Order: sequence, then C-alpha cells, then structure tokens
Amino acid sequence: MKTNTLLNYAQDRWVEGQGLLAPIASAIDGTLVAETGSGGLDFAAMLEHARTVGGPALRRLTFHERARIIKGLGLAVLERKEELYALNSLTGATRKDGWIDIEGGAGTLLSFSSKGRRELPDAHVLLDGAIEPLSKSGSFIGQHIYTPLQGAAVHINAFNFPVWGMLEKLAPTLLAGMPAIVKPASSTAYLCEAAFRVLIESGLLPEGAVQLIVGGVGDLFDHLGGQDVVSFTGSASTALKLRSHPVVQRESVKFVAEQDSLNASLLGPDAGPGTPEFDLFVAEVVNEMTVKAGQKCTAIRRAMAPAEHLDALQAAIAGKLAAVAIGDPKGMGALVSTAQRDDVRGQIGKLVDAGARIVSGDPTASVGHEGGAFMQPILLRADDPWTATAVHDVEAFGPVSTIMPYRDIADAIALANRGMGSLALSLFTYSPESARQFIQGAAAFHGRMLVINRDNAAESTGHGSPLPVLVHGGPGRAGGSEEMGGVRGVKHYMQRTAIQSTSAMIAAISEQYIPGGPKHVIDDAHPFRKRMSELHIGDTLRTKSRTVSLEDIEHFAHFTGDTFYAHMDEESAKASPIFEGRVAHGYLILSFAAGLFVDPDPGPVLANTGLENLRFLTPLYPGDSMRVELTVRSKALKTEDTGVVRWAVEIFNQKDELVATYDLLTENLP
Amino acid sequence: MKTNTLLNYAQDRWVEGQGLLAPIASAIDGTLVAETGSGGLDFAAMLEHARTVGGPALRRLTFHERARIIKGLGLAVLERKEELYALNSLTGATRKDGWIDIEGGAGTLLSFSSKGRRELPDAHVLLDGAIEPLSKSGSFIGQHIYTPLQGAAVHINAFNFPVWGMLEKLAPTLLAGMPAIVKPASSTAYLCEAAFRVLIESGLLPEGAVQLIVGGVGDLFDHLGGQDVVSFTGSASTALKLRSHPVVQRESVKFVAEQDSLNASLLGPDAGPGTPEFDLFVAEVVNEMTVKAGQKCTAIRRAMAPAEHLDALQAAIAGKLAAVAIGDPKGMGALVSTAQRDDVRGQIGKLVDAGARIVSGDPTASVGHEGGAFMQPILLRADDPWTATAVHDVEAFGPVSTIMPYRDIADAIALANRGMGSLALSLFTYSPESARQFIQGAAAFHGRMLVINRDNAAESTGHGSPLPVLVHGGPGRAGGSEEMGGVRGVKHYMQRTAIQSTSAMIAAISEQYIPGGPKHVIDDAHPFRKRMSELHIGDTLRTKSRTVSLEDIEHFAHFTGDTFYAHMDEESAKASPIFEGRVAHGYLILSFAAGLFVDPDPGPVLANTGLENLRFLTPLYPGDSMRVELTVRSKALKTEDTGVVRWAVEIFNQKDELVATYDLLTENLP
Repeated sequence: MKTNTLLNYAQDRWVEGQGLLAPIASAIDGTLVAETGSGGLDFAAMLEHARTVGGPALRRLTFHERARIIKGLGLAVLERKEELYALNSLTGATRKDGWIDIEGGAGTLLSFSSKGRRELPDAHVLLDGAIEPLSKSGSFIGQHIYTPLQGAAVHINAFNFPVWGMLEKLAPTLLAGMPAIVKPASSTAYLCEAAFRVLIESGLLPEGAVQLIVGGVGDLFDHLGGQDVVSFTGSASTALKLRSHPVVQRESVKFVAEQDSLNASLLGPDAGPGTPEFDLFVAEVVNEMTVKAGQKCTAIRRAMAPAEHLDALQAAIAGKLAAVAIGDPKGMGALVSTAQRDDVRGQIGKLVDAGARIVSGDPTASVGHEGGAFMQPILLRADDPWTATAVHDVEAFGPVSTIMPYRDIADAIALANRGMGSLALSLFTYSPESARQFIQGAAAFHGRMLVINRDNAAESTGHGSPLPVLVHGGPGRAGGSEEMGGVRGVKHYMQRTAIQSTSAMIAAISEQYIPGGPKHVIDDAHPFRKRMSELHIGDTLRTKSRTVSLEDIEHFAHFTGDTFYAHMDEESAKASPIFEGRVAHGYLILSFAAGLFVDPDPGPVLANTGLENLRFLTPLYPGDSMRVELTVRSKALKTEDTGVVRWAVEIFNQKDELVATYDLLTENLP
Repeated sequence: MKTNTLLNYAQDRWVEGQGLLAPIASAIDGTLVAETGSGGLDFAAMLEHARTVGGPALRRLTFHERARIIKGLGLAVLERKEELYALNSLTGATRKDGWIDIEGGAGTLLSFSSKGRRELPDAHVLLDGAIEPLSKSGSFIGQHIYTPLQGAAVHINAFNFPVWGMLEKLAPTLLAGMPAIVKPASSTAYLCEAAFRVLIESGLLPEGAVQLIVGGVGDLFDHLGGQDVVSFTGSASTALKLRSHPVVQRESVKFVAEQDSLNASLLGPDAGPGTPEFDLFVAEVVNEMTVKAGQKCTAIRRAMAPAEHLDALQAAIAGKLAAVAIGDPKGMGALVSTAQRDDVRGQIGKLVDAGARIVSGDPTASVGHEGGAFMQPILLRADDPWTATAVHDVEAFGPVSTIMPYRDIADAIALANRGMGSLALSLFTYSPESARQFIQGAAAFHGRMLVINRDNAAESTGHGSPLPVLVHGGPGRAGGSEEMGGVRGVKHYMQRTAIQSTSAMIAAISEQYIPGGPKHVIDDAHPFRKRMSELHIGDTLRTKSRTVSLEDIEHFAHFTGDTFYAHMDEESAKASPIFEGRVAHGYLILSFAAGLFVDPDPGPVLANTGLENLRFLTPLYPGDSMRVELTVRSKALKTEDTGVVRWAVEIFNQKDELVATYDLLTENLP
C-alpha cells in the first residue's frame, strides 16, 4: 500500500483500485495529494454483500442499539478530528469551513443518535400515526408501520463537504437499519476516505454495514433493485443522468436528490438602510459568498431588495467584500480546484452576457498562493431580473452572487419562485404580515425558509446551514427530495406499510402494547417498584375500584374552584346535549385514578413528567365506580441515566365501559 | 353534440375532440357504446389554466372550506348513482362490482372530507410535527409546514374503476388545494365522463379546479414543471414510459405510480384444513379471482400454502370456482373487452410455458353472452415456484391465480418478496408469532398487509379493498409510491418546508398560536361565553393567581389516595434527583388550573373532552403560587353542530416560570 493511494472498502476489506489511478491535486498549490480509482471492484458483489450481510446484521438491532452505535461513531470522529483538519486545508477550506464539515458532521451523528433514542422505540418496527378503526366492534383495525428497506443505500456525495456529506446520509440510513455504499466526489475523496477509516477503526459497525468506492461506480447501477435507495448530492446535470438510468426507472428505485439551486435571500419591504435588518442582510450575503468560497449548495445566489434600496445595498456589500482577506485562515479559502475556478469564471461570463454586470471584484484577478485555486468574490447586479432571466438559471458555484430589485411582495414572490425550486431562502423583515404573505406565497418552491430579524439574528444558525433536525432538500431544480429532518430522514430508508388485523396481532408485529391487545397482569410486585429493564411491554397493573359520590364531586369543586355547571347544576347538565345529569370532573377522575395506581414509596419511578392523548369517553355519574388498568406501552431512553416509560392508562366504570384513556409518561431509572 | 360522443372539459368548457374518434365497445356484447377523442385540445393552455385560475381559487379556501366542497361532491355522486350504475353494466361489471366503484368512490370523498375537518386546521397552512428548539433562549425555533403545490395535478387512471379511480385521486388533491386534470382510460371513459359531469353540475367547484381529457394527452407532458404532480394508476409498462419522460426527469416532477403487482396471499403454517383460517383463505382467493372478473390491481395472483396442504387447497378452491355463475348479476361479470381477454389468455400461456399447470377452468371456453368478453376463472398450480419463476413476474390481469407451496416461514417470506414489490398481501393465521415473523420479514416489500383469522374475518374489509384512511401503493414493481392514507395522501400534493424564525413570525405564517407567539388578552367576556366563530386564534384569558399550600397538598393526597413520596415525604423528595423537597401533585396543579380558568355557567363550551401533550416543567413547592394563561390555538369542526377548540394552557409560578403546558380540547358550539 502506497500512502497516497486511496483505498476502497469492499466486502469488509480495504482494496486498491486496479488499472489507471486518477491524480488529485491540492487546492492550495496544485501539488499531488493522492491518487484514486475503483478499477476491478465487483460492484454487484458489493451490493449483494450489503443486502445479505450488512442489512440482516443491522435489522437484528433495535433502533436504540443502532442509535448507540451512531453516537459512538460521532465521538470517534471528534476524537480524531485533528487528523481530518490536517487534510481539510488541502481542499482549500479554512479551519472555520472545516468546522462545518468535520465537527458539523460528527454533531449530525450525535443529533440523530439522540433523536433515535428519544423519538424511536427500543424495537424493530416504528409505528406511524394512530390506530384507524375499521370496524364497528373493533376486531379489525388499521395501523401504519415502518420497517427497514432490505436493499442497499448508495450514497453519492458532493466534493464540498466530504465528511459532513457522508455522515448526514449515513446517520439516518444506519438508524433506519439499512447498509450503505459511499461514493465520494473525487476531488476531495482523500478527506472522506480518512473519515470513513475512523468509522471502520472504531470497531462499532457490524460487517457489511458500510462500504466505500473511491472512484467510478462502474456497472453498479445495472444491479439496483426496488429495495435499494440512491441518495445523491451534487449538480442537477449529474442527478438527471443518474435518475434517468433505465434500471432506476424500471425498478422504481427510490432516488433522493439534493441539487445545487439558485437560492435567494430577500430584504423585506420594511427593511431599508438604517434598520437592523438591512445590516443583518448585508452581513449574511457577504458571509454566504465567502464561507467555503461560496461552494455551498445552499449559498445565496440571488439577493433581492426593494428597488429603492438597491444602490445602498450594493455599496454596503461591496464595501464588506473589499475587506475580505483571500487565502487567509480568517478570511476566504480557495475553490476546490483550478478546474472548478474555470467553471465559475465561465458561468460569470454567461451571467454578464445575459445582462448582469459585475459591480465588485475581478474574476480573473490573480490572488492567493501560486498554483492555488483562489479567486476574488464577485458581486453582480441585474437591474431587470425579468429580462436577464439567466440570473435565475445559471449558477456559478463559487463566491458569486447577484443583486436585483423587486417592486412589491407579489413581484418578490414571483422572482423568488422563478428559481424553479431551491434548498434555502431567507427573508429579512420585522413585519409579521410581510412574512406571512411572502412565505405562504413562496413556500411551495423552497425546502427551508428563514425569517431573520433583530429578535433572532443573534441566535440564528444562518441562511446556509442545514440542520439535522430540519429537512434539507427542495422541489423542482433542487431535486424534488428531502434529507435529514430528524426521524423524517430516517423514514426515507424504510417502507411504510398499512397493517390490518386485530389489536393482538398488531401488538405482536409492532412489539408495542396496542389498546385492545394482550395484557400480562403482574402480581409479583407493583410496577412502580421495577426498574425500566425489568418492565416488559404489556405488563399491566389492575387496581381495585372506588365509588365516586356526589359528595366527592362537590368537595372537589369547592376545593379547586372548578364549579362548571356540568358538575354542579343537575338541571343545566341534563339540558346539555352531552350529559344526562351532573358528572364527575375530568380532573377528579384523573386524580382518583392516580390515587388508585400510585405506589407511594420512593423507587425506580422518579416522577410523572407528562400525559398525552387524553380522551374522556363516557361520563362518570355520582354513584358510579371506577378502576384503572395501567399497562407498559413502550420504553425509551432519555439520558444514559434516566428513561421514559409510556403507560397506557385505561379507566373503566362498573359496567367495564371506557371512561377515559391516556398515555402517562414517567421518568424512570433504567 | 351527439349523445354517444364523449366530451372533454377544458378551461371550464365542454369540448368535443377533433379528428378521428375512437370507438368504445360494450364488454357485454361488443356493440358500440361511445366514441371518444381529445384531438385539438391545447394541453399547454389547460395546464396554465389549472395553475393560474384553479390553483389560486383553491388556495384562497381553507382546508375546511375545501373539505365541505368534497363532501358536497360525494353527496352529489350518491344522489345520481343510478345514472352511473346504468353505464356500469356496459363495462362488464356486476352491480356488486359497481358498488365498489361508484358508492366506494363517493365514500372516499366523504372520508377525506371528514378527515380534513377533523385532522386539518381551518387555515391555509398545515403544521408538521412539533417545534424544534434551535437556540438557547428560544428566539430562533424551527417548524415544518405544508403548503399546496402551485402547479397542476395530472391524474391518469386505469380502466377498472372509472369512478373510484378518479375520486380517490381527486379527494386528496382538492383537499390539498391543488387543481387537477383527469385522464381516464379509454375503454371505460364513458362512465368516468358521466361521473365527472356530476361533479361539474354540482356547481360546487371553483373555475379551473378540474379538467377532463377523454383521449390521448398529446404534448401535455412536454409542458410539465417542478410544481406539477403526475399520479398514475395502471400497468408497469405505461408507468415506465411516463415516468421516464425527459421533462418529468429534468424538472423533478413528482410522479406517483400505483402499478399492477403480483399480490400474494398466504395460508399460515398453523392453518391446515379444518381450521377456520383454511376456509377463510379459500373463500378469499375465490372472491379475489371473481370480483370485477379479477381485474383489480390488488387481486391475489399468488396463493401460497404449506406444501402438505396444497392438494387440499386446490380441491377446495376448484370446488368453489366450479360453482361461479358467469355473466350472472350475482356471479362473475365480463372482462372489460375482448382485447383484454386475449391479453389474459396470452399471459396464461406464458405461465403454462414456464411450468405452471391449469388445475381449474378452461381459458378458451366460450361462456356468457355472445360477443361479450366473458371467460372462466382459471386456477394454476406451480409445484416448484423457485423454478417456475414466471409466476412471480407474469401477470394475467383477469380471473386468474396460481397456487404454490412453501416449506417454512423463511421460504414463505422469500417467495412473497420474490414478487419484487406489491400493493397488498394477506396472511391467514391465528398465531401471533407467525404473524410477527412473517410481517417483519416481508413488510418492506408490500404496501398493505392483512392478517386475517377467526377473530376478525367477519369485520374484515378483505384482501383487495384499498381504504381511504390507509395508504394504497407499494415499493418496487408496485410503483414505489403511495396514495390515500388519510392526510398522508393529501401531503403528496403539498410541499413540506422547514421554517426557521421567532415564535411570533411562525404564528403569523401558520395562522395558529405558537407557544411564545403573540397573545391578545381578551377582557370583554370570558372566552367560555363565546361561540367558536367568535373566538380568534391567539385570544387569551389571563387568570388571577392562587397559592398552593402544604395543607392543599396533604388534603389532596388524602382525598384522592395519591400519597406518592414526592408529595408526602420531605426527606425522600429531597433525596430524589428531581425535587428539592415535597411538591404539589401534577393532578392538583391541573385541577387548580381548571378552577382558575373555568367559567361555570352553561354556554357555548359544552365539555372538556381531552388533553394533549401535557408536560410538567418546573415543580411547584408548598407556598408557591400559580396562574394560568389559556389561549385559542386552533379550531376544527367535529360535526355540523359541534366543533373542537384547542387551547394552549400555560401554567406559571410566581416567578413567571412555566410549571406546565398542555393543549386542552373542548367541545364547543360553532
């Protein structure tokens, strides 16, 4: 093994590509960094390895077990981050740029791990939505579930975030229980390979869970099937080529595309010079042009302002751009390659040909280190964006943005939407009404929208930052897909299936208690005396019953102050369309229920932290009695030291009619 | 206008197709029923009409306003159903078959209307999930929303359910706020056109909301864009042709495909002859072969049984098939055309060539009315389904099914999944463990799965019936898409966008109260004295405060029986990781809160019906005081005469810290 030759990771082995290898040059000075290639790999065998070894191994784990692995991977990346920062600088990125990529990538793993443990059950099946009643007596019900797809996920990543780009796709994929094959972009593959090596060397992943291709994908697409997923980040043209592949089409292969788009940022009609929003807007446009040298799929390519403020805006942005130090660790880094810089210069030429003019910067100026891919940030201006329509279609993927005027909100909406779909849009306004009009008019065209102003700018994560808990993607030109968004992103790697059966069968399939499903009445000890690990799904406490008297109701009313007519006034209660006479307070029923099921001594149940989906179903009249069944519905970890048990509470009257049902949440020792 | 010439409905006018018209023959006797064509239509103009007239008109309405229109459409179809039944018989369908199509279609409209009023807000924006905290102090939060896509929905329907097929797509589309262009299959277009006419003549739909093409779609696909949706039902080959269209690919047009698939039904390992499940299985296979003459995309094509029961199964099914009366109103109807029958015969030939053999029925037997498209139901048997693999790939879209053996659950899973994706699968078993193993192993390949047995068969809606509240669709060969599923199906016609801003901005955008957003304290009257229509989003009642004493806590403990240590034992409470000493019961806080905010007299608030998302955030210690802010969060109709108001309840202590938050549901007069 030569140290500068990147390796593939196929069928759990490191393999050097055969035949001619492609050289990768440093963005800083053009010297050789690495050679790479994937010749000789058996792509069909890699897919089969993922499907037959990695998939089954991951599917044997529960969501929580997978979430713990993902946390370990995130910590492993943080532990060895300096190795990655050393390579990061060769890509042209500053340390600040690399922070987004490396620590942002690790943070994405940690975020998904946390979401997985809090929002997914410690089981193999995820329930989607509530039970759908499908029959009168309830013997036939519907429940949607998610289970992991049984194919392989093929991740095709962009050059600009070689670490984050890999990890933001891997986290939801592995959490879903699906194996992945990662294919980084060549120009920064050495950094991705190094980060991938950290994952493998952590020893946390089961065999077959991940594989790596540091070159072309050969005939891999010919072997895809309907259980596989392709998740692509990059240019619209490459996305089109891949998604049009006859096998992708024929087999209905799930294709997730996140494409560069002409993202816009708008200065609100209220936000003229002198307002905090004007200054925030100027700073954000400059930031988005220079971070990562503008090579971000979310960067602001179109900056729109009320026509009367365009000159002031131009002056303010140009003033700040002139102060940007190029090639400085605290300033702007290089583009990824001189080829990329040539491409950006070509696109700027098209924008100028179409009627935009350069108002700051010189695309051909020689700046930065000799042989490096540096360039000045370029601000263009299009005074008639309805004539110079190329500003909505031609993207220069570098430190380039175009300012343009709008007439009114309707015109601003139309211009924003003329981009035909984007990943991110920001609006700088302090007017809720402008925000409402604009967002409602434009949301269908944009995957993520920020409204930034003096109240939130200090805490804002900024226009260009996708967050693991929010969806990343957009319609039309942005690819028509979504990634991340917490559990939403996990579902892309799972299949939703509607199950129709009895409660008992659905409980067995979903590994959760389902109302109407089987209960195991426990009598060896009160469930509050058990640690979370000692409680099993379906374990049930049946309480004794107590009678609710008119005196109880009156006493409670006077004690709490809740003298609502339905509890206190027989005449009016009878006259209501709901009650046949005075009824017990809902809160009295809840309180008595707790009195029936609570075990008072200190123990593994620390506190009642919440309650969900409470429904009062049958009124409880004076003289009626009530009893409670308390059943373990599901369990989840909250931290390493505490967990949350979700109990199904069912309150019955003396006729065994359901009086109320709810989910009770308790904080427990694990 | 000749009465037997079908008309298109373009740009709000009925238009006869120009040029050559295609004849449509009766399935019963081959006589001419109608002529149809779409020559001369300006498809680009139709799309533009939908986008610029229909879309804006629908988007001006709230979800509830659209839901009321959809209910009206459903009632209009029921009102005029006999006109449709008259045409139904010409398609070869029996009245029972037509009931699924016509009244099932109307019922789907009513179901979506009901879901829309209960589960969607009376607003223009749908919130998705909870607020995501994105910052420490809470000035910057995330909220996902759905807004209607601003293009046109193009619905391309199959011949087998000309009414239901149109309405199951229209209901979610219109509810989402999107206009539609409907293109029925030619062979039954006369029935779809008649149902479409009922919708138009109801006068309920805004201009541009729906259009109809009773012929080819010409160059329509060349004019699609990234805000349009194509929803297709039919064969895999046509789906492939349409989804591969270069404009669909280039513009990331959302493409929903629901394709015929090789659906399976399995007899469980426990369900031998003599069990109720065996008899239920036999009946269901026969039913699925004969209803609609087997021309259903969900029909059972592959019936699998433990090898030792295959002979008994064959005998039982064949016995029942022999008794089916063909061409009888109570028996099996005709195929849609003689061309379709020829196609089915050809596919049977392929199955036989591949190693299956016919064990009941004769594909070439002359049955039913002269000139009609009748045929006998055909049962095939494949003794080695791993050799005769065509049984998993070749579909005969008629009264045809193949029985085959499996060895064990693992083999059954593999065979079921060998279909490479299906719309519906049923399993007949009384064993929860078999159900768990099978469903977990196979769910990723199937869109809907039923587990049927003696406990639910009487109430089951059956293998082949998609339901409006459950998703319909499946992975791989079934098209890789979903329709219906209640609100899930509405979301296919909307765009999800992540919004990042302050609570105030998100409240304005979403037309709902968002915790932390602006409140309007009302002092003219208690909100319980107002009808739902008089309450506005954000209206807030601020109560006075009350102190909670140690006596209150002890009194409540003894009254309810809830003597949990955290309330009664200072030492143990202090020792817990959560509390600093004895605390008030959560239910005491809830009860006192009601005492503070309830207005006792009878009025428009009829009852407290439920409570959601309760979280206890700060313990309340003896001597602390509490006050409540009760804010109108959203409103929805329950029936015509009652509504549900969702109130955000926030309980504060004397330091204005949040003690608890929850949503309170009340039943109100509208």
